[in-house]
Amino acid sequence: MHTAYVNGTYLPEAEAKVSIFDRGFLMADGVYEVTSVLDGKLVDFDGHIARLERSLAALDIVKPVTKDELLQIHRELVARNGIDEGLVYLQITRGGAPGDRDFAFPDPGTTPPTLVLFTQSKPGLADNPAAQTGIRIISIDDIRWGRRDIKTVQLLYPSMGKMMAKSAGADDAWMVEDGYVTEGTSNNAYIVQGNQIITRPPSSEILSGITRTAVLRFAEEAQMEVAERKFTLEEAKAADEAFVTSATTFVMPVVQIDDVALGAGTPGPVAQRLRKIYIEESLKTAI
Amino acid sequence: MHTAYVNGTYLPEAEAKVSIFDRGFLMADGVYEVTSVLDGKLVDFDGHIARLERSLAALDIVKPVTKDELLQIHRELVARNGIDEGLVYLQITRGGAPGDRDFAFPDPGTTPPTLVLFTQSKPGLADNPAAQTGIRIISIDDIRWGRRDIKTVQLLYPSMGKMMAKSAGADDAWMVEDGYVTEGTSNNAYIVQGNQIITRPPSSEILSGITRTAVLRFAEEAQMEVAERKFTLEEAKAADEAFVTSATTFVMPVVQIDDVALGAGTPGPVAQRLRKIYIEESLKTAI
Repeated sequence: MHTAYVNGTYLPEAEAKVSIFDRGFLMADGVYEVTSVLDGKLVDFDGHIARLERSLAALDIVKPVTKDELLQIHRELVARNGIDEGLVYLQITRGGAPGDRDFAFPDPGTTPPTLVLFTQSKPGLADNPAAQTGIRIISIDDIRWGRRDIKTVQLLYPSMGKMMAKSAGADDAWMVEDGYVTEGTSNNAYIVQGNQIITRPPSSEILSGITRTAVLRFAEEAQMEVAERKFTLEEAKAADEAFVTSATTFVMPVVQIDDVALGAGTPGPVAQRLRKIYIEESLKTAI
Repeated sequence: MHTAYVNGTYLPEAEAKVSIFDRGFLMADGVYEVTSVLDGKLVDFDGHIARLERSLAALDIVKPVTKDELLQIHRELVARNGIDEGLVYLQITRGGAPGDRDFAFPDPGTTPPTLVLFTQSKPGLADNPAAQTGIRIISIDDIRWGRRDIKTVQLLYPSMGKMMAKSAGADDAWMVEDGYVTEGTSNNAYIVQGNQIITRPPSSEILSGITRTAVLRFAEEAQMEVAERKFTLEEAKAADEAFVTSATTFVMPVVQIDDVALGAGTPGPVAQRLRKIYIEESLKTAI
């Protein structure tokens, strides 16, 4: 049994609980981060904590512990659970008091936030066989709320999207709004046309991915051409290649969108090269 | 200390907990109902359970117990907690297993749903002084997701809306999309123009309120004219009166929208009459 962390206490996962009055449970009033672990070390920890702080600030949720304390908790869980490749999941909610349920926020002085962390072991994260074959995605309407830049736990629709993909025999879904691709259910979306990597710029319509930022930096350092602009579903289907990025899939080639195979129907060279660079660089700077 | 119910067990509220791996906590993957209690009895229990079943079906969540069992649990909590006027809150989530977090739904055969109930005592619910003065509301953009007909726990934006109202010195907020009022943060919205009661028809854009259905039926039985159509924010500001309905506020007059006082700036006769009828009829049929 692995160990989880809840509000200052390390305990077995089966005993890790929160109050039914926690606003994370009652009102989806919380934010989260997922940091990947490679070689027992944390990838881009600083980037995840910086985004966590932006999410908390956007919702007026108090940060319960310092960044140094968060780092210590991440490392303690990685050590206790023997995570070599995998992830650390972190969630902070506005908390809640027994008997209380009110749309208005409680006073943070009397109702402290809730801090929860756990790990998942994912052996083969770097050598993921899916990266060899690529993944198939379907397109679905993006009907999520308007503040997708805040990494909240309102994940019901992305979760439904994953099930729609599964029903269609695909691996994942891209969401489309006003004809333009916004992002994947849990990743940022890219196409490659000619030598150009095209991806939607950050706005309230998508999450500003930590892996996205790193991958675009590596692409530019490698003299690859990057265009941050919106692209349509039709452009994507006509693209030379496509891929997604996220903390736990790194760079993952997309080989099919709806019924259309991209290029040769196999992972493209740009996605493969970026994946290799991203994993090499991440291993160098993981802490 | 009041008693709550969690998955078959009655326990003190402070001990009422769910796993941190519950998808209600991690992904807002759950639905809820709030049933009001008048004179120690449940108002429109059948209506709430029918909507609960629609919400669960829309999300493919298994109903964990029968309607009769739900009624028995509601009554047991009302009795144990001595609720004369107040509410019973019920939430069902897709559950979750220690260590597991995946966007794809788990197998309901091995991961059963979570059932949680608790009560709140609200003495003076029927004689609410706010109904004498009416409430003031502000208008805010409706940026919620596209399936507002499903009563999910994705309540972060309504909660933020309540805080925006509070900051503006108002009591609540109406949400506006494409110029038209959708609904309040936790209630349905109505205006009265001439002798006509105007309210938005049910669709995926609003919750089909249980109190709404009852109030419209009572209005028609009382020979009042009802028009189910969308109305703009401008129409609302120019209306003779306005009001909201919900399970716990019944019919609540609105006397100000943004900076505009409605009519005489006091509760209008239609809202007052409907409130009286609703409470009288609800008391007769509560179980």
